[in-house]
Amino acid sequence: MTRRIAFQGELGAYSEAAIHQLFRAPVDPVPRPDFSSVALAVLRREAEAGVLPIENTLAGSVVGSYDALSDADPLRVVGETILPIHHCLLALPGSTLEGLEEVASHPVALAQCGAFLRAHPHLRIAPSYDTAGAAREVAARRDTTRGAIAGRPAAERYGLAVLADHIEDRQDNQTRFLALARGERVLADAATPSRTALLVVTANIPGALLRVLSPFADAGLNLSKLESRPTGEPWSYRFFLELEHLAGDEAVWRALEHVRAVSQEVRRLGTYARWPCPPLELPGDVRAIPRG
Amino acid sequence: MTRRIAFQGELGAYSEAAIHQLFRAPVDPVPRPDFSSVALAVLRREAEAGVLPIENTLAGSVVGSYDALSDADPLRVVGETILPIHHCLLALPGSTLEGLEEVASHPVALAQCGAFLRAHPHLRIAPSYDTAGAAREVAARRDTTRGAIAGRPAAERYGLAVLADHIEDRQDNQTRFLALARGERVLADAATPSRTALLVVTANIPGALLRVLSPFADAGLNLSKLESRPTGEPWSYRFFLELEHLAGDEAVWRALEHVRAVSQEVRRLGTYARWPCPPLELPGDVRAIPRG
Repeated sequence: MTRRIAFQGELGAYSEAAIHQLFRAPVDPVPRPDFSSVALAVLRREAEAGVLPIENTLAGSVVGSYDALSDADPLRVVGETILPIHHCLLALPGSTLEGLEEVASHPVALAQCGAFLRAHPHLRIAPSYDTAGAAREVAARRDTTRGAIAGRPAAERYGLAVLADHIEDRQDNQTRFLALARGERVLADAATPSRTALLVVTANIPGALLRVLSPFADAGLNLSKLESRPTGEPWSYRFFLELEHLAGDEAVWRALEHVRAVSQEVRRLGTYARWPCPPLELPGDVRAIPRG
Repeated sequence: MTRRIAFQGELGAYSEAAIHQLFRAPVDPVPRPDFSSVALAVLRREAEAGVLPIENTLAGSVVGSYDALSDADPLRVVGETILPIHHCLLALPGSTLEGLEEVASHPVALAQCGAFLRAHPHLRIAPSYDTAGAAREVAARRDTTRGAIAGRPAAERYGLAVLADHIEDRQDNQTRFLALARGERVLADAATPSRTALLVVTANIPGALLRVLSPFADAGLNLSKLESRPTGEPWSYRFFLELEHLAGDEAVWRALEHVRAVSQEVRRLGTYARWPCPPLELPGDVRAIPRG
């Protein structure tokens, strides 16, 4: 059975490569224009699952993905994967680096190629909504003065030449992606190295954040990620937390009860196997959440 | 004495208004193209101080400012201010909202006007490096199909008409700014409500972040901000923390000693009066850090 998996961007994007790492073949990648549309596609059953880039080792957190996760209730995070990111400068065959005037890409990709772009100050920088989308547009416009920063799969898909390869600031550049589905990940083996993702809104009182975190410290848990996003209400935050633990470790659930007692809101976004792990087998790996 | 104060953007930007709230007149705002150039202008003595937007209540943290602060050693944070942010849609006199095809602004400003932009889907969105810069360009191009999102001061400065006012998603939209200088803020009154900003690199071991935070919790301090940024090294982070305390509270310094013992690196970025507070009087309010 082919599973439809939603992702942000166009075919040839890094998120499409993440789908092939995350899910057992055959899969059918379903492009969507933005992060919240990925979650919406899963909620509306236009896709069985969705993939969101969550953080890059050079550019940091992808805040639009965090906001999409916050709004994706009752979807759950069911998996993660980490993809090496190697950017290429793509242009029409016959173009030269010297002849280019403008280079388009997603702002997060542009941020990862700072040294290359500073070394070529004649290139005007054009932010775009997607790496592969920028490549597709270069191919469509037939303009040899325009280039795009994207991955090698985008060059192949849109028939572009690679003018420069590995232009990221560090060769160990990586992006972590999360998978979203309409159910809970089944982790049968209690010894599976896992993560639990939480969304916490702290009470608006002094010391609230530290009080929320101390039950995790007391339980000896590792907080692998802590990201704050504004609620819109001035100086009020929701925190996205990820804890590392073994799937069967009951200390997580006990700590969570303590955290609920001192928070305004706690939502568990999901518990999933840490990468590297075998590819997800939908629907077998996910237990549907009862409706209602 | 007129103090030269560096800011990111062009004259008429919100950061320029922040300068007038932060510093006693007369001041001379010095425009710079990006956040790191603001810090550099202060380091190179092209300005006495600099101003960086640090977080907005709708869009969240301004990560470029955090990165500029990290690289600004030995500069110190000497003050903060909070500015209400009311966005306008600006265009050439004679333009109409219906006749506009494109609207340019800084991505953070565009993110604060999501509802307005979704309600006017005929407007193509063009990210720009600055709100006031986008307004200046609309004025320079003399094209009635192009608009900019910026503050009312930019309309006045560049002779543009206000086609729509208060187009931000929430009327209580606010941005907090920090002031940077070549010295420590003098806080003579021990009862001054203050903040201390820290940069902490945790050791790369399980539980490191929670271990760093517990001395602050033990001292009963309030952690008003916690922002993580990547170091570039995969899955390694530097944390930007702000603590609330009274200027004379010794518990902060004791807690800091405990934190140093369990961190890879701790840098105090500065201690400053919480907004609202009287405007800064340079050089009287800042004690120069001895060179070397």
